[in-house]
Amino acid sequence: MSQNSVDTDLLIIGAGPVGLFTVFEAGLLKMRCHLIDALPIPGGQCAEIYPKKPIYDIPGYPSVLAGELIDNLMKQIEPFKPTFTFGERAQALQKLDDGSFIVTSSRGTTIKAKAVAIAAGLGCFEPRKPALENLEKFEDKGVDYIIRDPEVYRDKKVVIAGGGDSALDWTIFLSDIAEEVTLVHRRNSFRGALDSAEKVAALAEQGKVNLLTDTEAKSLNGNGVLKGVTLKHKTQGEINLQADNFIPLFGLSPKLGPIADFGLNIDKNAIEVDTTDYSTNIPGIYAIGDINTYPGKLKLILCGFHEGTLAVQSAFKYMFPDKKLSFKYTTVQGVNGFE
Amino acid sequence: MSQNSVDTDLLIIGAGPVGLFTVFEAGLLKMRCHLIDALPIPGGQCAEIYPKKPIYDIPGYPSVLAGELIDNLMKQIEPFKPTFTFGERAQALQKLDDGSFIVTSSRGTTIKAKAVAIAAGLGCFEPRKPALENLEKFEDKGVDYIIRDPEVYRDKKVVIAGGGDSALDWTIFLSDIAEEVTLVHRRNSFRGALDSAEKVAALAEQGKVNLLTDTEAKSLNGNGVLKGVTLKHKTQGEINLQADNFIPLFGLSPKLGPIADFGLNIDKNAIEVDTTDYSTNIPGIYAIGDINTYPGKLKLILCGFHEGTLAVQSAFKYMFPDKKLSFKYTTVQGVNGFE
Ligand SMILES: Cc1cc2nc3c(=O)[nH]c(=O)nc-3n(C[C@H](O)[C@H](O)[C@H](O)COP(=O)(O)OP(=O)(O)OC[C@H]3O[C@@H](n4cnc5c(N)ncnc54)[C@H](O)[C@@H]3O)c2cc1C
Ligand SMILES: Cc1cc2nc3c(=O)[nH]c(=O)nc-3n(C[C@H](O)[C@H](O)[C@H](O)COP(=O)(O)OP(=O)(O)OC[C@H]3O[C@@H](n4cnc5c(N)ncnc54)[C@H](O)[C@@H]3O)c2cc1C
Repeated sequence: MSQNSVDTDLLIIGAGPVGLFTVFEAGLLKMRCHLIDALPIPGGQCAEIYPKKPIYDIPGYPSVLAGELIDNLMKQIEPFKPTFTFGERAQALQKLDDGSFIVTSSRGTTIKAKAVAIAAGLGCFEPRKPALENLEKFEDKGVDYIIRDPEVYRDKKVVIAGGGDSALDWTIFLSDIAEEVTLVHRRNSFRGALDSAEKVAALAEQGKVNLLTDTEAKSLNGNGVLKGVTLKHKTQGEINLQADNFIPLFGLSPKLGPIADFGLNIDKNAIEVDTTDYSTNIPGIYAIGDINTYPGKLKLILCGFHEGTLAVQSAFKYMFPDKKLSFKYTTVQGVNGFE
Repeated sequence: MSQNSVDTDLLIIGAGPVGLFTVFEAGLLKMRCHLIDALPIPGGQCAEIYPKKPIYDIPGYPSVLAGELIDNLMKQIEPFKPTFTFGERAQALQKLDDGSFIVTSSRGTTIKAKAVAIAAGLGCFEPRKPALENLEKFEDKGVDYIIRDPEVYRDKKVVIAGGGDSALDWTIFLSDIAEEVTLVHRRNSFRGALDSAEKVAALAEQGKVNLLTDTEAKSLNGNGVLKGVTLKHKTQGEINLQADNFIPLFGLSPKLGPIADFGLNIDKNAIEVDTTDYSTNIPGIYAIGDINTYPGKLKLILCGFHEGTLAVQSAFKYMFPDKKLSFKYTTVQGVNGFE
């Protein structure tokens, strides 16, 4: 458990494209930003679901890969030196008497902020979990659903389960790091990219990876800490494997999650906002991008850019009621980043 | 007078960045667009005022020249084959009983459209006119404020007035086309780029351009059609020049102009809209980009992109009340242009 504490002007929950661009607009108004995201990387849906696919409706880009868009946004916000908490979920929110907020993460990090912009997209990406008895008992004690830092698995015995890109790519990657990597998949063909599947087959032939198809995990063994996994082959019965880690990579599906309990007005899994400034029913909290709803709402990236831009104007007035907000074109004033 | 008539789904008044991108979003919904702009080129303020300056707040572009942004938008909308009327002002608007519109231009072009999006920015760029008696009598009869087609001046005697880039650049350009080019400027140093001023001085030395500084136009001569210009030098008195054309290039300044008489609700030179769909008080007419106003409005390009995107959703329903609107990501459906 990393137990950090952070103090910032604007806390942005969600580092998808909309949260990222909002750092730029906040920076122009001299507000510092911290972002928290449950994923281990920035980019939200663009990074998690379709990094290699082209988007055609980003204005000024006849075509741009989702991953490239995120890279460009990261570069654009660099002058404003945003800070990040990755791999942690914003879990609880408390409003203080002075109008500021404290947000606590799933791992105990506390973030103090003068205002909060929720850019949580479709919600937190929650791992799809296999139906295994005792699974949750071993979470963080050998069972992981997301690989945050591959070094954790150095010289370990690792069992990965799944048939998509994520399972294939991590199997390949960890084959160089872990002592032993086993990939378990309940079918005998893979959903992921063909060349990745071929790469895994080649590694299996070289003895660098154990590949077990037509096989599923049945139970987890260990006393407090994971020691082994029992697998079952379609026709050949049970297999017992020693394992320090079991990593089911069955994809992530978004859930509104803890944000539902922040006291915000919610309509069909989205937060209701006023389009004047994309403010919610709690003064000082804004909701932008896919997470919000209002009459006419479209869940498009370009719409979130506009919403974040208007929201930070209002957040500035909320934070600094006595300061004057001067609006200048970037072309005229340039971009004056933070030290 | 070119007297054309055009029939389209959506007429967009103003081919600035916002009008241009709206073609893309309309195209995704299978609506064809025609654009009219008083300027001879697309791009609005970006093209007219600061084509060579970088913009820093276009999302995904750490920096992009205003002119490049326009080029990219033109490329992005190409699949939807928009048509253009350049160099004409949308002058009058008439709503027909069936809910469609007829817009008439300053040059008599009529455009029939099922809906209208006004993306007129700060309004029509109107030329700054010198205070010369009889000036308006010679408009289109020898006096021009914008050069639409340089070929018009082939083998003509042309007098250009002004001290900025436009006057210098056109003097250079027309020196190859016109029989005789005279550049008249009331000071003896130029506001425009130094290398352009040097080029003009060099052409003057070679006898390819007449350069008259410290000189102003005093009166225009001719009987119905321009025949000559009388100039006055600061100290040396009057000069009479034969001239087929007098082209004062003193810059353009935007005016709301005829749009003020369309029957729309106007507040401080901007059109009031409902942020649900950026509709105006006249059903079927939308206002997007710098031209509109609503609580929280920011005159930014990225905001106009959002506004245009929401507006075309509503325009579709206005045009085709019985058709179903299906919303799909470009990444998923691709971009299916028109033949
Ligand atoms: C296949 C596909 C194709 C698409 N194509 C297009 C397209 O062509 N054009 C287009 O405009 N849009 C497209 N979209 C939609 C686009 O990706 C979304 O509109 C965009 O990602 C929304 O950005 P966002 O920043 O609001 O949220 P997201 O990208 O969803 O990011 C939200 C982030 O918040 C994090 N989060 C949520 N809750 C918490 C919490 N409690 N604590 C910490 N972190 C949290 C999530 O982990 C996530 O990273 C597509 C989407 C998909 C799935
Ligand atoms: C020096 C400068 C720097 C800027 N920097 C930035 C920046 O960094 N970031 C940013 O987001 N914005 C910036 N802007 C503002 C930005 O240029 C505008 O927000 C943008 O151009 C608005 O686009 P638009 O399409 O709504 O209108 P415009 O670009 O104004 O285009 C409107 C068009 O409509 C035409 N038109 C108007 N009336 C009529 C009529 N009756 N008939 C026919 N045509 C008509 C005009 O000729 C014009 O071409 C800057 C502006 C300036 C001047």
